[in-house]
Amino acid sequence: MKLLIINPNSDIAMTAVIRQTAEDFAHGAFEVVCMPTPRASGFIDSYQDEAEAAAGMMALVDEHADQFDGVLVACMDDPNLDAIKEVTAKPVVGIAEAAMKIASMIGHRFSIVSTSRASVANHQVLARKYYMEALLASVRYPEGDAADLSEEERFFEAARAAVDEDMAEVIVLGCAGLADMAKRLETRLKVPVLDGVVCGLIILSGMVKSGISISKIGRYRPRQGPAD
Amino acid sequence: MKLLIINPNSDIAMTAVIRQTAEDFAHGAFEVVCMPTPRASGFIDSYQDEAEAAAGMMALVDEHADQFDGVLVACMDDPNLDAIKEVTAKPVVGIAEAAMKIASMIGHRFSIVSTSRASVANHQVLARKYYMEALLASVRYPEGDAADLSEEERFFEAARAAVDEDMAEVIVLGCAGLADMAKRLETRLKVPVLDGVVCGLIILSGMVKSGISISKIGRYRPRQGPAD
Amino acid sequence: MKLLIINPNSDIAMTAVIRQTAEDFAHGAFEVVCMPTPRASGFIDSYQDEAEAAAGMMALVDEHADQFDGVLVACMDDPNLDAIKEVTAKPVVGIAEAAMKIASMIGHRFSIVSTSRASVANHQVLARKYYMEALLASVRYPEGDAADLSEEERFFEAARAAVDEDMAEVIVLGCAGLADMAKRLETRLKVPVLDGVVCGLIILSGMVKSGISISKIGRYRPRQGPAD
Amino acid sequence: MKLLIINPNSDIAMTAVIRQTAEDFAHGAFEVVCMPTPRASGFIDSYQDEAEAAAGMMALVDEHADQFDGVLVACMDDPNLDAIKEVTAKPVVGIAEAAMKIASMIGHRFSIVSTSRASVANHQVLARKYYMEALLASVRYPEGDAADLSEEERFFEAARAAVDEDMAEVIVLGCAGLADMAKRLETRLKVPVLDGVVCGLIILSGMVKSGISISKIGRYRPRQGPAD
Amino acid sequence: MKLLIINPNSDIAMTAVIRQTAEDFAHGAFEVVCMPTPRASGFIDSYQDEAEAAAGMMALVDEHADQFDGVLVACMDDPNLDAIKEVTAKPVVGIAEAAMKIASMIGHRFSIVSTSRASVANHQVLARKYYMEALLASVRYPEGDAADLSEEERFFEAARAAVDEDMAEVIVLGCAGLADMAKRLETRLKVPVLDGVVCGLIILSGMVKSGISISKIGRYRPRQGPAD
Amino acid sequence: MKLLIINPNSDIAMTAVIRQTAEDFAHGAFEVVCMPTPRASGFIDSYQDEAEAAAGMMALVDEHADQFDGVLVACMDDPNLDAIKEVTAKPVVGIAEAAMKIASMIGHRFSIVSTSRASVANHQVLARKYYMEALLASVRYPEGDAADLSEEERFFEAARAAVDEDMAEVIVLGCAGLADMAKRLETRLKVPVLDGVVCGLIILSGMVKSGISISKIGRYRPRQGPAD
Repeated sequence: MKLLIINPNSDIAMTAVIRQTAEDFAHGAFEVVCMPTPRASGFIDSYQDEAEAAAGMMALVDEHADQFDGVLVACMDDPNLDAIKEVTAKPVVGIAEAAMKIASMIGHRFSIVSTSRASVANHQVLARKYYMEALLASVRYPEGDAADLSEEERFFEAARAAVDEDMAEVIVLGCAGLADMAKRLETRLKVPVLDGVVCGLIILSGMVKSGISISKIGRYRPRQGPAD
Repeated sequence: MKLLIINPNSDIAMTAVIRQTAEDFAHGAFEVVCMPTPRASGFIDSYQDEAEAAAGMMALVDEHADQFDGVLVACMDDPNLDAIKEVTAKPVVGIAEAAMKIASMIGHRFSIVSTSRASVANHQVLARKYYMEALLASVRYPEGDAADLSEEERFFEAARAAVDEDMAEVIVLGCAGLADMAKRLETRLKVPVLDGVVCGLIILSGMVKSGISISKIGRYRPRQGPAD
Repeated sequence: MKLLIINPNSDIAMTAVIRQTAEDFAHGAFEVVCMPTPRASGFIDSYQDEAEAAAGMMALVDEHADQFDGVLVACMDDPNLDAIKEVTAKPVVGIAEAAMKIASMIGHRFSIVSTSRASVANHQVLARKYYMEALLASVRYPEGDAADLSEEERFFEAARAAVDEDMAEVIVLGCAGLADMAKRLETRLKVPVLDGVVCGLIILSGMVKSGISISKIGRYRPRQGPAD
Repeated sequence: MKLLIINPNSDIAMTAVIRQTAEDFAHGAFEVVCMPTPRASGFIDSYQDEAEAAAGMMALVDEHADQFDGVLVACMDDPNLDAIKEVTAKPVVGIAEAAMKIASMIGHRFSIVSTSRASVANHQVLARKYYMEALLASVRYPEGDAADLSEEERFFEAARAAVDEDMAEVIVLGCAGLADMAKRLETRLKVPVLDGVVCGLIILSGMVKSGISISKIGRYRPRQGPAD
Repeated sequence: MKLLIINPNSDIAMTAVIRQTAEDFAHGAFEVVCMPTPRASGFIDSYQDEAEAAAGMMALVDEHADQFDGVLVACMDDPNLDAIKEVTAKPVVGIAEAAMKIASMIGHRFSIVSTSRASVANHQVLARKYYMEALLASVRYPEGDAADLSEEERFFEAARAAVDEDMAEVIVLGCAGLADMAKRLETRLKVPVLDGVVCGLIILSGMVKSGISISKIGRYRPRQGPAD
Repeated sequence: MKLLIINPNSDIAMTAVIRQTAEDFAHGAFEVVCMPTPRASGFIDSYQDEAEAAAGMMALVDEHADQFDGVLVACMDDPNLDAIKEVTAKPVVGIAEAAMKIASMIGHRFSIVSTSRASVANHQVLARKYYMEALLASVRYPEGDAADLSEEERFFEAARAAVDEDMAEVIVLGCAGLADMAKRLETRLKVPVLDGVVCGLIILSGMVKSGISISKIGRYRPRQGPAD
């Protein structure tokens, strides 16, 4: 099994974090190739970023589709996920969708701990898109002065507030680049802390293994005939 | 007042229909400029079409923003609407959003009469996005043999079934290119038949007139800083 | 075009505020006539007030229907709106419905800034009636000591808390009598502040202009035959 | 215990049916007084009918409040129920609300069998008001030719279709005047058939008995100060 | 009329509190027999407790069904309620379901005041099961140091916070064993305080009186044929 | 990795079908042990069956917990799933939950093809429990005369109707015993056909692999202290 992981931004360092997470999960049982998106912005933080990443993401799928058994979209905004599900015959999973759906199976409500206040609305929009908004206890983000605390400590404080004040029973990390702190936060918080890349790979690798793919008769029917 | 109407596809004939509808509504009270989208597909019928239209739509806004007081996205899929709301400081309205929200104000439930079975899921997804899914009596489309009936007659039969069988009290036309049959269908069906371009212009021109625009502090905050 | 604006209470000063707001919006493009409701209470603050206003409101419509092209119900409780939609063949719009639906098109979530704690439940009930409850970030009202702050300052503080603490991206004024502070609050808050009268006129004048009216085959079918 | 039953219309015969149903239920354990509404229409079939009944209904409560321990609004549209809950300190129950909430406790989904197609939307609106819309399998009404079948037979056929085709597990009669056929229909349909008057009296008499009344601090807070 | 009240736990003292509440409500008008559940845990506080109580609860129904006209499940978790509704032909009511549905009829939103933080999720799950989650203002529980305040005082503080901060208009007691403080809390809080046992008996006794029972054609159809 | 698969009924043949499906999926990569439930009914078809299976299911977990890395509850009613999630520290997945959540990721709406009309309500209840009810196009079951068609043909006809008439884009098999027809139906229907056991194993094996387990601080907190 060989899986294509698309990092919808063009950041090399974040691509490396995602690759490492994926390889740790795969543990040699299958192959993963993780690519940044050409001509995409360095961080997906707006609808414009998402729209601009579309062409590059579709090109990656188009050029490499034959070489892979499935595609993972590895950004917690699930940018262009519907389009990717539509354009390829291979199974496609988005990490936000996967993370929220697994979160809903292991606790009553979950909180997303995200990078900034500006991302809150979009995480709420996505939770509703996936019918999980009633389970979204809150979207938290690091507050206070970054000078006083390490980044991880600030995420920990946000997650702790989600658990203590919002009664979250599960934490979902709001960015694919945070994976390396998942297990450390989990140990401190004593609740599951989910990283989207791992959740996405659980479902995608399982779909490939069992021959499950996207339904092509309705919402994700590929474009018919010539485009213009 | 001068409004930019973006037809998200590249079809010249459909652009002309939209322009005509818009000019009939404006009736000289304000100016409308209706443009097709460069490098877009000839008909928006898939997520891929929507993604491919994004660059051209944003370019239109970018190049012409200073010359217009507001932007109408004139396709019943509201493609890239969130991105357009985000990238310009001018008010932006999508015709599907406008049509569904006005439909909800003039009757109990509405049906969308669309072009094909393949579009049903996407209209349902959009109705839910706008919190109108409970008011969507059905999505109907012309069925049966096109050889026996004119296009308008087949849309009439679909709309009639929506009214009689699904208890729709309002019909929303599922494509910006159907505007010219709205009033004729309305006369025959004895229920309001809404065209999205008209509904969109009602709200957009009113927003411009009264100085209402998109909130820029959260979901539609423009991209910060350099993109890469 | 000539529009009848019904102020459902009997207050002359509030009627004047509404008239001024309406004339500012119309700006000579159409005519507005704003009337208080005979035998109604001085402020609509309870279901009893609403019920007592019904007869006078219907009488206004009945007596003047022929002279007007549309009817605006100008109170943020939308009292007797369903009945008014039913009894006249002209288009009818309620300002709460219009304001909430426009609010939903320009930002992620909105808050209503209302006059008192006692009105909170009714605004929530109305938001749900219009399928907008998931978008209602909060209903806020001036708190604290009126001796220390002007009325406008107290409304500003309530709105500011809605934006800062409840993450409202749009503010909807909870009473038709507050219109004059809308633009000043907007400037200070840096988010759109919507006045219902303006929102209602946007949609009503557009409906009249394009010949859209209430569907009469179901929910708003007029009473058949003699009443008793 | 002495209960006031308000028939919101002015029909004497229907008042008698309601009274009989109520006395059969009370069976001497408490006293019921059933009154038609002065100056109301002969049948509540429109929002106008409801609005016109308001003054008479409130007058009945006002004049007789001291003599009764509770008030039942006995029409399946629950007209002016919120206002009646607000104006009296005594417990108030509406029969539609009571019937739907009991229906939800004895089966998966229920259908309302109503008098006419025109009433369907309003029953749906009411089901949603009471958060029961997801449990409303359908609203059915007698169809076909009244010349061929008795009224009861036609209601039976509507109810049978609700059970067989819509999978209703409980039938709620859509009009207070149908009570006398409830038990006969139940025997034939082999599912519970609920009459609103009985359901309303179950809850109202129990509330009186145990001292439960309407909360007066928010939604149903009585009007403060002079009404003028 | 003779009603069987099942206390799903095995606690004798709590059984006595429930019995007293029930006898006070019945006031001689009907007979109640209140039984603890053999082999059940002493307090229902987990899914395991619920599962372990099932056999004993069904045995009670099985052995005594002929002697009773209806069954009340008297625990605010409504444990095994669906199974009990299924196995007997007699009407069955759960106290949580009854309390939430009556609460929804007497005020805008209600809060449950429960015994501990650990019970919050389960009350939320149950409110959703009964379609009442949108009306659940909050679940509160006694916080702070038990050494400083009596149990009743701590429940009062929790309820007061629900009213003041969460805008609850009705309080529902979260445990059948709290009945004796209902009226005292109500007096102090000035909002209705509902005890589930009373609410359940209102509906159950009324169902028995009027011959309403559980629908047996779908969700609650008894097991067909031999079990293995 | 070693997974315990609990068949909640006592049927040996169905246990064998489940075991075969599981071993086919595992394909030697991990070990599965599939056990029928002692003292459970031969088929789970009622709430009583579910309640009676609880003790045996919990005993299986209790006796074997140390020997397994995760537990799959392999019945499309997910009987006692909450209790099993609560009593063990190992990850637990129910096959209905897993199948519906994966179905929601590969198409717009799904239908469950179940064994009988009697099971429809329970599948609907479960879809709602998992927040998937808006995506449930229908629950279908074989209709017509079993004498004329093979079992598989009758399931095919039910599934075909779901796709053609209800616009299901994905089929979920309604019983763990139907797994062997999944791929054949998929080939004929041209839409994905999901078997719950496969879906459950995808998620459970992935959770074990990545160290994800059930949150133990709220809804699934194990019972504290002694039970009686």
